[in-house]
Amino acid sequence: MVFTETIESVVKELMQQFADTASERDVLGGTAKEQRDFIRRKGLLGLTAPKHTGGFGEDWHTVLAITRQFAKVDSSIAHLFGYHFLCLASVELYGSKEQAAFYAKETAEKNLFWGNAFNPLDKRVVAQKVGSGWQVNGIKSFCSGASDSDRLLISAQKDDGSGPLIAVIPTDRRGVTVSNDWDGFGQRQTDSGNVHFDAVEIKNEEVLEAYERQSSGLFSTVRPHIAQSILSHVLLGTAEGAFEEAKNYTKNVTRPWLTSGVSVAAEDPYYLYHYGELFVKLKAADALVQMANESLQRTWDQKHHLTIEQRGECSVVIATAKIQVTQTALEVTSRMFEMMGARATFAKYNFDRYWRNVRTHTLHDPIDYKIRDVGQYVVNQKYPDISPYS
Amino acid sequence: MVFTETIESVVKELMQQFADTASERDVLGGTAKEQRDFIRRKGLLGLTAPKHTGGFGEDWHTVLAITRQFAKVDSSIAHLFGYHFLCLASVELYGSKEQAAFYAKETAEKNLFWGNAFNPLDKRVVAQKVGSGWQVNGIKSFCSGASDSDRLLISAQKDDGSGPLIAVIPTDRRGVTVSNDWDGFGQRQTDSGNVHFDAVEIKNEEVLEAYERQSSGLFSTVRPHIAQSILSHVLLGTAEGAFEEAKNYTKNVTRPWLTSGVSVAAEDPYYLYHYGELFVKLKAADALVQMANESLQRTWDQKHHLTIEQRGECSVVIATAKIQVTQTALEVTSRMFEMMGARATFAKYNFDRYWRNVRTHTLHDPIDYKIRDVGQYVVNQKYPDISPYS
Amino acid sequence: MVFTETIESVVKELMQQFADTASERDVLGGTAKEQRDFIRRKGLLGLTAPKHTGGFGEDWHTVLAITRQFAKVDSSIAHLFGYHFLCLASVELYGSKEQAAFYAKETAEKNLFWGNAFNPLDKRVVAQKVGSGWQVNGIKSFCSGASDSDRLLISAQKDDGSGPLIAVIPTDRRGVTVSNDWDGFGQRQTDSGNVHFDAVEIKNEEVLEAYERQSSGLFSTVRPHIAQSILSHVLLGTAEGAFEEAKNYTKNVTRPWLTSGVSVAAEDPYYLYHYGELFVKLKAADALVQMANESLQRTWDQKHHLTIEQRGECSVVIATAKIQVTQTALEVTSRMFEMMGARATFAKYNFDRYWRNVRTHTLHDPIDYKIRDVGQYVVNQKYPDISPYS
Amino acid sequence: MVFTETIESVVKELMQQFADTASERDVLGGTAKEQRDFIRRKGLLGLTAPKHTGGFGEDWHTVLAITRQFAKVDSSIAHLFGYHFLCLASVELYGSKEQAAFYAKETAEKNLFWGNAFNPLDKRVVAQKVGSGWQVNGIKSFCSGASDSDRLLISAQKDDGSGPLIAVIPTDRRGVTVSNDWDGFGQRQTDSGNVHFDAVEIKNEEVLEAYERQSSGLFSTVRPHIAQSILSHVLLGTAEGAFEEAKNYTKNVTRPWLTSGVSVAAEDPYYLYHYGELFVKLKAADALVQMANESLQRTWDQKHHLTIEQRGECSVVIATAKIQVTQTALEVTSRMFEMMGARATFAKYNFDRYWRNVRTHTLHDPIDYKIRDVGQYVVNQKYPDISPYS
Repeated sequence: MVFTETIESVVKELMQQFADTASERDVLGGTAKEQRDFIRRKGLLGLTAPKHTGGFGEDWHTVLAITRQFAKVDSSIAHLFGYHFLCLASVELYGSKEQAAFYAKETAEKNLFWGNAFNPLDKRVVAQKVGSGWQVNGIKSFCSGASDSDRLLISAQKDDGSGPLIAVIPTDRRGVTVSNDWDGFGQRQTDSGNVHFDAVEIKNEEVLEAYERQSSGLFSTVRPHIAQSILSHVLLGTAEGAFEEAKNYTKNVTRPWLTSGVSVAAEDPYYLYHYGELFVKLKAADALVQMANESLQRTWDQKHHLTIEQRGECSVVIATAKIQVTQTALEVTSRMFEMMGARATFAKYNFDRYWRNVRTHTLHDPIDYKIRDVGQYVVNQKYPDISPYS
Repeated sequence: MVFTETIESVVKELMQQFADTASERDVLGGTAKEQRDFIRRKGLLGLTAPKHTGGFGEDWHTVLAITRQFAKVDSSIAHLFGYHFLCLASVELYGSKEQAAFYAKETAEKNLFWGNAFNPLDKRVVAQKVGSGWQVNGIKSFCSGASDSDRLLISAQKDDGSGPLIAVIPTDRRGVTVSNDWDGFGQRQTDSGNVHFDAVEIKNEEVLEAYERQSSGLFSTVRPHIAQSILSHVLLGTAEGAFEEAKNYTKNVTRPWLTSGVSVAAEDPYYLYHYGELFVKLKAADALVQMANESLQRTWDQKHHLTIEQRGECSVVIATAKIQVTQTALEVTSRMFEMMGARATFAKYNFDRYWRNVRTHTLHDPIDYKIRDVGQYVVNQKYPDISPYS
Repeated sequence: MVFTETIESVVKELMQQFADTASERDVLGGTAKEQRDFIRRKGLLGLTAPKHTGGFGEDWHTVLAITRQFAKVDSSIAHLFGYHFLCLASVELYGSKEQAAFYAKETAEKNLFWGNAFNPLDKRVVAQKVGSGWQVNGIKSFCSGASDSDRLLISAQKDDGSGPLIAVIPTDRRGVTVSNDWDGFGQRQTDSGNVHFDAVEIKNEEVLEAYERQSSGLFSTVRPHIAQSILSHVLLGTAEGAFEEAKNYTKNVTRPWLTSGVSVAAEDPYYLYHYGELFVKLKAADALVQMANESLQRTWDQKHHLTIEQRGECSVVIATAKIQVTQTALEVTSRMFEMMGARATFAKYNFDRYWRNVRTHTLHDPIDYKIRDVGQYVVNQKYPDISPYS
Repeated sequence: MVFTETIESVVKELMQQFADTASERDVLGGTAKEQRDFIRRKGLLGLTAPKHTGGFGEDWHTVLAITRQFAKVDSSIAHLFGYHFLCLASVELYGSKEQAAFYAKETAEKNLFWGNAFNPLDKRVVAQKVGSGWQVNGIKSFCSGASDSDRLLISAQKDDGSGPLIAVIPTDRRGVTVSNDWDGFGQRQTDSGNVHFDAVEIKNEEVLEAYERQSSGLFSTVRPHIAQSILSHVLLGTAEGAFEEAKNYTKNVTRPWLTSGVSVAAEDPYYLYHYGELFVKLKAADALVQMANESLQRTWDQKHHLTIEQRGECSVVIATAKIQVTQTALEVTSRMFEMMGARATFAKYNFDRYWRNVRTHTLHDPIDYKIRDVGQYVVNQKYPDISPYS
């Protein structure tokens, strides 16, 4: 834990609350309204807002550490929590200083939860210039956290073909409909469904366009670094939570196998071996993630002084960590059953949700191309292309 | 396919029927009454009964091949189908020639489905000698296929401590209650729940005890060979079905990744590579399973001439195949998503059921100890212990 | 063993002779003249020649089985032995019936050892039409078995650009110089060095060109199937020999580890586990290789009736086997030390030669592209391109 | 690099000198007398000696970083270099403050190279009390660096059964014979052969016994932590050197494969992928090793205040790093050939020495038991047993 004791105790309390119902909420799917309100009430949504605005003034280390903690018990909540800060940070990346200050303060004061309607691969939302600002129409998919959100970060295509329009609006703005149509086999409470825009008005001051006036515009391309880091922490936390759960089960429930020659399962030579193997991988993931976080924070702190080399190095370090995390999380959540035994598949435990969550979340963008990107860097000193994923 | 054209077309027809509803029945759980009746109606339950009794006179190759085919579309049905023959074969293993002939004929004539209440690790059912035969009381767990069955193979502990009592009874015998309480995250329609015995009468002629008079009794210890072979075929079929499904999805639905440089996903160099890798493993599993089946059939045909060496060699060959099948099935059903992409996690596809089924089914008995058994054979020329699992 | 008892005892005797000096000859490198003469003396070079010509009339099953046996003790000899038959078979693939009959008979009668100067990737040897036939000049690399050979299969580029010239010449033909310049870290006695051609005369009857007049010419493209099958058997035999050696060492030499709690190394739970794991992989390789051999023999027997589908299927089956063999051989020869311990690295044992031989031999053509080829077949129903390697 | 610029430039210069002849010295085996003298001349043997004694006053971070650098070009030298400091540190672990000060100063002043005759598993050297001190007789194996050393750390068994005698003697003490009989397939210049003791006199002041008077004696058990850390750095450096060598070869020598569709090998999608995969593992190893080093230094700094918990945690962290390093080094040095191609096996490159060195060095103590130790810690909160290896 890198955050202060106050925050730490708040996080622990929330973790307990999330854990109590995580399994049944996985079955239900839908929106974790109650849990999101817990977070609102504790003021954690202003974690990164400056202290003088009522926030905690914390950095990415803290955001990511809490995301990982939450993921140990509830990877959907963790995802929404992390993405809230991704959306908020996007104001700094794309908007003016004044906008950044305004939204940070407002978020901290009113405990606003931000949702995402930004998916850059889905270009079906179109923006048209109107007198008072813009009007947007269309549908956006994979809108994690849009349900029950207070503010929405959106992207649309300008109808004159001049590129994307990025803006922030209240989620209850007229014409916005958040469909509760996310239904995946994992990350079931991330509300990653569709948002419909029907003649939605956007005011000029809600548009984030300052980045277009930046000379290099490089700082605004740091968004994937943040997004990827959040994904890594959600995955690593999930794997750690699963590992812990498995361990407790092996110790307290699993019976020794009849030909094992040991009297308790926790002394089984093969179970110990597999736990040892998986632990090494988790520690490797942990060590790489810590390195990546330092790189991310340094990159973030560079702001508009960021160079292409710094951005590229950061991208590689984050990709490296994410590869290790991805492979480890998949392995832990599938192999853990081998040290628990047949009864661990009883639906009442819902232990399969760890693998379902990880499997879903690791497909956000293909790991194969992350590995290739790292290879290109290592062999040919090429940085990953600037893209929504690297 | 090793069976005749008639059987082959019946199997194909059934596969289509199972496939139509397999995904929704996975969600429901419970008993696949309708599908079991399809099998009954087609007369497949007499597959191994001699032709003169109205059966098909087929051998283990056929039973296992059909089990594998069924598993491609519905691994629960495949399991129940395979275990039906395990139960029926148990009459030959433990009972007299007359009993074997009687039950084979009756099964073929009346299309009886057999269920399992045999779990040798659960010793809570007790048998007491009474005038007319035996009376049994207690609970038996993991009774695959007991629901909706017509005959039940049961095992109980004799109350004088003189060992197990093995018998066949009609499932509707008074005092027998099949609980529909199986609720696992996989193999959800295998009805592997509890059966309660409340003062259940067993007639002397229902008791299978001829094996106790065999000099070596070795033939009766072939049951795990059959059970393990069935498990291998269920797993391999499931993996093959999943692989096929994934391939079709990649070809027809998946979009090429934005930095892949290919115009269709099916030409992605990494997706091709992973399909190639997994195919090699599936073919290796297939090749080993074929070898194991030949060994099983030879072992079965030996009947009471079976030697300890023949039994041991067969046990190792079957274990070898099962290890490869287990590792491959787990890998295929988890990694297949990497060649399909994020949208393949939508609940409507229910593609996670393949992994859930495989993960559940691969925990029947620990693969670690199969691997050790093979190692003991290889290094020290020791055959696996005679046990319910080897 | 698929060959007759006579051959079997000859093979066993040779294996013993090879084994006696294999390790020291690995250190020496160069040509295994003495061992090649053993083979000559036993008449094995006529293994595939028809019986009426003095040969054994054996098929590919036998050639490959002996290659694999030899590889257990000496993978260089095994390679030369297998490639001898590849060269001899090439006369059937490229030449006329009369040429095939002539060379088979001559080989069987005179116990001629064939060498390879065929490497199709090296196009530096040029053929010029002259009155009496052809004259060739240039250098050919990777000429396995050319040293100490009696006949040489050569390929050259016609200087009019009309394609390759394929021919058979006596190795002692004037102008042919076999350099003993092969110096690799593995397969050290395969004599895979350069052959120099300096105004070498080739008679018209030595030219193999009948295949150019075949309608499809498909049969002549079966050469890579044979070559790849030989490579697989060399690799698999090497791995099996290494595995056996390791096992004996563990049982007879290795001391139990101080915290293992066992009194002999051969009962170490982890060593048994690793032996079990590797054995499964070896058996999978074995099973796939057997399937591939059946396909090869069928393909060979088709001769000029071979269809593109049959050729393609055979190519995939052989590639599938080779992938499994390659991965297994690399793993066995590297991991075996973990069950032997530190002293197994003493130079006197020369146990590293197994890995060195396998690592060298597995680079003949890249396994990555074999895997992709299999993927293309599986996903897109495309057969591997007709090439010198598939 | 954590050390000062002066040291850094010295290290670079030495690396160049070692690299020039590393391959040919691998072939020769024996003692790298010239290279050891380079190190002597540069004063690096006093790296850890306090500055006021003429040393550099550096800590374990520096020792290990240089060991790793050296291993990139010559893993034998790296091993001897690291073990020199292990021997020197042993004086602090076992001896009095005065002895530690004396030997540090003497080593720095006279540039003494220390060798190891300590192998605790070999108990054939016996010590007998004599008037002037002790007399030792017997043979000690695996004495890395004893050849050409100036001082020798030795252990012997007291003949009264009261435990070990630990002492420091000049290597040229009468009765000491260092056999140049190390002949392994890897780490060929580590001189890890036998040392014979024939009535060797040991003076009382040469005996290290202060640790016997320490209450807990815990600090003296830190020796395996240092030894294991050195091994990890030798292995990681070797893997990094091999990786770099392979990369350069792929870029400068390897030809693109004929069906790859790329014009240079360095753009091959599979080669890039494999380089990416291996790089992630190397970075994971690097990250874990850094964590382990911090733990080691903290543990060392605790001196006699060390608690059993601190020792145990450090042991686990070092084991965790070593597991990752071991697996990665084996994989890198074997798989690197797949991105280089067949010609990379030419003996002139001697690229197999990386695998030979790693394979030899990774057998020092079995990795299986390291993994189990980590499992015991994770599952049962048990620290590894205090032993010569953990």
